[in-house]
Amino acid sequence: MSNKLVLVLNCGSSSLKFAVLNALSGEEIISGLAECFNLEDARLKWKAQGEKNESSLGAYASHREAIEFIVKNILEANPEILNDIVAIGHRVVHGGEKFTKSAIIDEAVVEGIEACSGLAPLHNPAALIGIRAAQACFPKRPHVAVFDTAFHQTMPESSYLYALPYKLYREKGIRRYGMHGTSHLFVSREAAAVLEQPIEQTNVITAHLGNGASICAVKNGKSFDTSMGLTPLEGLVMGTRSGDIDPAIIFHLVDREGYTLKEVNNMLHKQSGLMGLTEASSDCRYAEDGYGEGKEPAIRAMNVFTYRLAKSIMSYAASMDGKLDALVFTGGIGENSALVRKLTIEKLALLGFSLDEQANLDARFGNSGNIGTSSSRPILVIPTNEEMVIAQDAVALTQA
Amino acid sequence: MSNKLVLVLNCGSSSLKFAVLNALSGEEIISGLAECFNLEDARLKWKAQGEKNESSLGAYASHREAIEFIVKNILEANPEILNDIVAIGHRVVHGGEKFTKSAIIDEAVVEGIEACSGLAPLHNPAALIGIRAAQACFPKRPHVAVFDTAFHQTMPESSYLYALPYKLYREKGIRRYGMHGTSHLFVSREAAAVLEQPIEQTNVITAHLGNGASICAVKNGKSFDTSMGLTPLEGLVMGTRSGDIDPAIIFHLVDREGYTLKEVNNMLHKQSGLMGLTEASSDCRYAEDGYGEGKEPAIRAMNVFTYRLAKSIMSYAASMDGKLDALVFTGGIGENSALVRKLTIEKLALLGFSLDEQANLDARFGNSGNIGTSSSRPILVIPTNEEMVIAQDAVALTQA
Ligand SMILES: Nc1ncnc2c1ncn2[C@@H]1O[C@H](COP(=O)(O)OP(=O)(O)O)[C@@H](O)[C@H]1O
Ligand SMILES: Nc1ncnc2c1ncn2[C@@H]1O[C@H](COP(=O)(O)OP(=O)(O)O)[C@@H](O)[C@H]1O
Repeated sequence: MSNKLVLVLNCGSSSLKFAVLNALSGEEIISGLAECFNLEDARLKWKAQGEKNESSLGAYASHREAIEFIVKNILEANPEILNDIVAIGHRVVHGGEKFTKSAIIDEAVVEGIEACSGLAPLHNPAALIGIRAAQACFPKRPHVAVFDTAFHQTMPESSYLYALPYKLYREKGIRRYGMHGTSHLFVSREAAAVLEQPIEQTNVITAHLGNGASICAVKNGKSFDTSMGLTPLEGLVMGTRSGDIDPAIIFHLVDREGYTLKEVNNMLHKQSGLMGLTEASSDCRYAEDGYGEGKEPAIRAMNVFTYRLAKSIMSYAASMDGKLDALVFTGGIGENSALVRKLTIEKLALLGFSLDEQANLDARFGNSGNIGTSSSRPILVIPTNEEMVIAQDAVALTQA
Repeated sequence: MSNKLVLVLNCGSSSLKFAVLNALSGEEIISGLAECFNLEDARLKWKAQGEKNESSLGAYASHREAIEFIVKNILEANPEILNDIVAIGHRVVHGGEKFTKSAIIDEAVVEGIEACSGLAPLHNPAALIGIRAAQACFPKRPHVAVFDTAFHQTMPESSYLYALPYKLYREKGIRRYGMHGTSHLFVSREAAAVLEQPIEQTNVITAHLGNGASICAVKNGKSFDTSMGLTPLEGLVMGTRSGDIDPAIIFHLVDREGYTLKEVNNMLHKQSGLMGLTEASSDCRYAEDGYGEGKEPAIRAMNVFTYRLAKSIMSYAASMDGKLDALVFTGGIGENSALVRKLTIEKLALLGFSLDEQANLDARFGNSGNIGTSSSRPILVIPTNEEMVIAQDAVALTQA
């Protein structure tokens, strides 16, 4: 085996993202997305060695059919790739307090993931289906679980406890767990490299802004606090999620406005955020374009989104014991939206951040860079690579 | 009429606070508390010209009996005071978007307060009962309503909008209103006076920390943002209230842990905050004492309380356009707890705040002062005086 390739699987409830990565070089050899599971037009799109392909998976296909298709029709057609796959890396959303780092999957780990399903009722069961299907296809190769929550298990009590009756934590595990751990971990390491300082002595605030969005206070290389909580609903304004609200709004809507709790749940997860504020789209580009054209709903959405983001970034300066080395932007919005970054950084002057407008325009579409002025604390744009973390962890755990 | 005295009434659902103030000198001539309304031992305590008194109100007495008692047994016994009362000032919790400042009470104002009752279903009806009872006792003197929310009506959209479907704001008035307006207004004016600068050019972050607690970003003398929202549940950790949580915790507790929505509502309002974290007391002194004695629950409560407070203060630095003149502490905790202030300010080094330990110990129990070091941005302890604001507004509106 000359190359150390890893098949990375990221199973959602109705879709599956996959990639084959070279864990040493980072090269992405194959990548794809299977979607519309359990619907008539279940299908798979993929890119292999530069070429784009698409295929139906057969009506009502799901995770198992998708993984079988990947093995039979994509990997077996490229035996040199198939043979070099040394491990399968599975993204798992919720590892509770059980998993503080990635783990080689055995029956105890499967049970552990199952035990955390109550905390991620949509995501963990999907990951388990993917693990079972992949184990059936690759019974001899090691499988590794990489958890979105694991990086945040270093948070101190003052970050992870809610001000709720303490027994809810003790007896039911209700606390802040955080998400996007692999992304915050990856970009904080990259930031330390850019800053040329040891990660153990690096304090950065990382903003992962995609459809879901979260901030992390990375102190001495470890997650000290993060904006997502028990679930990915907490914190920032997102594509369709509200982030923080007055919790009493839920009581108000049910008790006084005639909503069912289920409707409110759906509203906060699916109809809020940028979608709710623009009344049109969850896509940041829609708000960005409309902002440029002077459209009121877009301006409103951008202003709320960036003000809340700036407040959140500011708040994590309270985690830093007086030392903050840089601010990092990543995720689809963080890597591409010059407008979001500009409107946010404008509000961070009291932390010593100021924006270099040209550098801000240059650092887009995959380009990284420091977008702060020479007198600013560094502001780094760093494309995230969660697959890379998964591939590297899978190799590190299994190829020692 | 030589003195301009104001009878200030603050009606809760089961209690009533009252005071007679000299609106010019600020002198408090009479003050008292009626409590246990609708219970057998409904009673009234008061202090008049230095002397303490207590009386039963008769079984099951309520607002009307209390106000009648105040007039017949306290004020009529002091005709020189009664005659000098030029107005009655009523504290009203919620003025919605209707009331941007205090208002002389006429039928339209009563209707306006009624219309806002949906937003404060416990408080506004109690205030209306008090207004009606006081009007019956003082039919000839002007009554003025002073709203907790009014000061915050200058907040811009980016501060007051939730990232919810926009129609919830348009059609149902669901937005952030904020509370403690009279306190934030009072201490921000006092701060400008201490700083010797015009209030219109003063930017301060005010922390009102009592049983309820909120932060306000006062920019150019106006409320720009505040931590309470649609209701007083949002924001900081409080005596028994949770402040911000992942809203999905509510769904989790109902859908998966068997709570009713009403139980969760009660839990978040009455059993959370310092009470929930210590599992013993909502009183800050309990946590402060226990912290000194090394008791774990108290340490946990103090750490969560002050970390969340520090994060919140930090976050409002994003509101300030780069100019922050001072931080202000007020309310029972803010005026008295040297420990809370110390643990909080320790975390604010990146904003240029540092604590003078001796000044911190001196500024307690009614003493005001700057507790920052000489190199720190000013940190002011200023005892609040909401009654004074009410009395002054009542005089200003009616004695022109
Ligand atoms: N050029 C761009 N300008 C602004 N926003 C962009 C741009 N490209 C992508 N985005 C935004 O990135 C978000 C998706 O981020 P991504 O990290 O891909 O999402 P996910 O959380 O699903 O992984 C969308 O809101 C999208 O509008
Ligand atoms: N000496 C003190 N040290 C610490 N906390 C104090 C002290 N005195 C009062 N407090 C706290 O102040 C809080 C009550 O604040 P207050 O502003 O009177 O409340 P309210 O919001 O009901 O008006 C309580 O938590 C109490 O413990």
